[in-house]
Amino acid sequence: MGSLQNSHESIEEVPVRKVLGSAIAGGRELLAVEEPLEIRIGYHFKGRPQARSLSITMRTPGNDAELAAGFLVGEGMVRDPSEIVAIRHLGPAAGNELQVDLHPSVDFDATRLDRHFYTTSSCGVCGKTSLEAIETQGAPAIPLEGFTVETRLIHNLPDLARGAQPVFTQTGGLHAAALFDENGNLLDVREDVGRHNGLDKLIGRQFLDAALPLHRRILLVSGRASFELLQKAVMAGIPVVAAIGAPSSLAVELANRAHITLLGFVRQNQFNIYSAPWRIVS
Amino acid sequence: MGSLQNSHESIEEVPVRKVLGSAIAGGRELLAVEEPLEIRIGYHFKGRPQARSLSITMRTPGNDAELAAGFLVGEGMVRDPSEIVAIRHLGPAAGNELQVDLHPSVDFDATRLDRHFYTTSSCGVCGKTSLEAIETQGAPAIPLEGFTVETRLIHNLPDLARGAQPVFTQTGGLHAAALFDENGNLLDVREDVGRHNGLDKLIGRQFLDAALPLHRRILLVSGRASFELLQKAVMAGIPVVAAIGAPSSLAVELANRAHITLLGFVRQNQFNIYSAPWRIVS
Repeated sequence: MGSLQNSHESIEEVPVRKVLGSAIAGGRELLAVEEPLEIRIGYHFKGRPQARSLSITMRTPGNDAELAAGFLVGEGMVRDPSEIVAIRHLGPAAGNELQVDLHPSVDFDATRLDRHFYTTSSCGVCGKTSLEAIETQGAPAIPLEGFTVETRLIHNLPDLARGAQPVFTQTGGLHAAALFDENGNLLDVREDVGRHNGLDKLIGRQFLDAALPLHRRILLVSGRASFELLQKAVMAGIPVVAAIGAPSSLAVELANRAHITLLGFVRQNQFNIYSAPWRIVS
Repeated sequence: MGSLQNSHESIEEVPVRKVLGSAIAGGRELLAVEEPLEIRIGYHFKGRPQARSLSITMRTPGNDAELAAGFLVGEGMVRDPSEIVAIRHLGPAAGNELQVDLHPSVDFDATRLDRHFYTTSSCGVCGKTSLEAIETQGAPAIPLEGFTVETRLIHNLPDLARGAQPVFTQTGGLHAAALFDENGNLLDVREDVGRHNGLDKLIGRQFLDAALPLHRRILLVSGRASFELLQKAVMAGIPVVAAIGAPSSLAVELANRAHITLLGFVRQNQFNIYSAPWRIVS
């Protein structure tokens, strides 16, 4: 694979053949980088340091610490950045193994890992047998009142996010998650080949900045809204989630339960409101 | 959630508010159903029956047996349909728990489950630490010669597949995988909210029909081509994989290693060839 460049960047260039009609010509193309990342957790049990693997996810390298922090937030394993003393790459410089070290005073329940036996960043329900299980993670309740958004502001979100997605623009191969304040100002964007990693990175950054819960923020995701994306929004306390694509049935069900305003098909001056519609005003 | 219909169908109808500009009106919308499915495996160890959980995946109900079979094929756990004696729903009629019973004579290596500790349908690299690990699963080699496809045939694939995607057409919320023969005839389509479940179902059906390896078949996937999709294609022996979207770096790397012809951005009379280009002829 001599054609592949430094694999620890977000973009690689490869030779391709480009077909137009029946004509085939040589060319080059940019690809979004995809590599595995193992997330490990270091904790203390009876005063002795322990470490275990939590998850292996296929991700676009970059912002790995945010990804790990956001993943732990989504799983309800940490509530405050002070609980984390270090996030460090292990092993060779390659950097596909990351350990999150919890503060020794953190009472980490390692038996919970059994519940998370199958957890990956792509499977937020792993080890849980019902929708109700989400509530056992102690998600902060999202305030029902005091936050409304005008339709016109929602219509603007996709264009604002697209302008801030350099890797997608070059490769066409990434999922993105963008965070906006209540005035529609773009605060942050993260991109990743992995379906939920962009959102983990986005939430991880906010968590590390001690900005959670995100009760006055709007989340935009580039694709479809799945149960797992909504679960991560619940854990971060985000009241309005907008998706360019369609939501799934379970995403709508969870949004209703958590009183999240879920918007789908946000494009071309239109969108659908699937839950908690009172936050959207003309 | 009284508005939700029978959750064991592929589509649900829910009330929504539809926003156009600043106008908000009531309406109804169809959603793709998303529900968890736990896949368990039943096997014999020292003559005694055992059972373990393999994976929990978020899937669209329907074709669950195919999904389970395809998942096992992708993980290299079964090679021939005779190794499976039953695929049955467990527990209540709800049907979100499925067990695949292997024939007592099958020498199932339960220690492999540790390697698959984190496996879900969304994480094909779980428990594996490098790209080389894919080769330990004994994927059948794909013949280098004897199978070529004309560009014109590739251009036709997306339209043929779209015509056979009833749930996507109604909900806009699904990933699809379609299988074609060497003449471009559509053989089968599977749709699912889960990124890789449609492909698992498609391959599972072929496996149960004893049609593997698929050495003279073309696969079309509706979204991007990830490492994990390519891994499943490798295990099924598919020589040509076409994606509507972009491939990732690792997908291209694996396609090169496995001599799979990987095509991306297959749309509007154009596409890119990323690997094994000799199978595509004008």
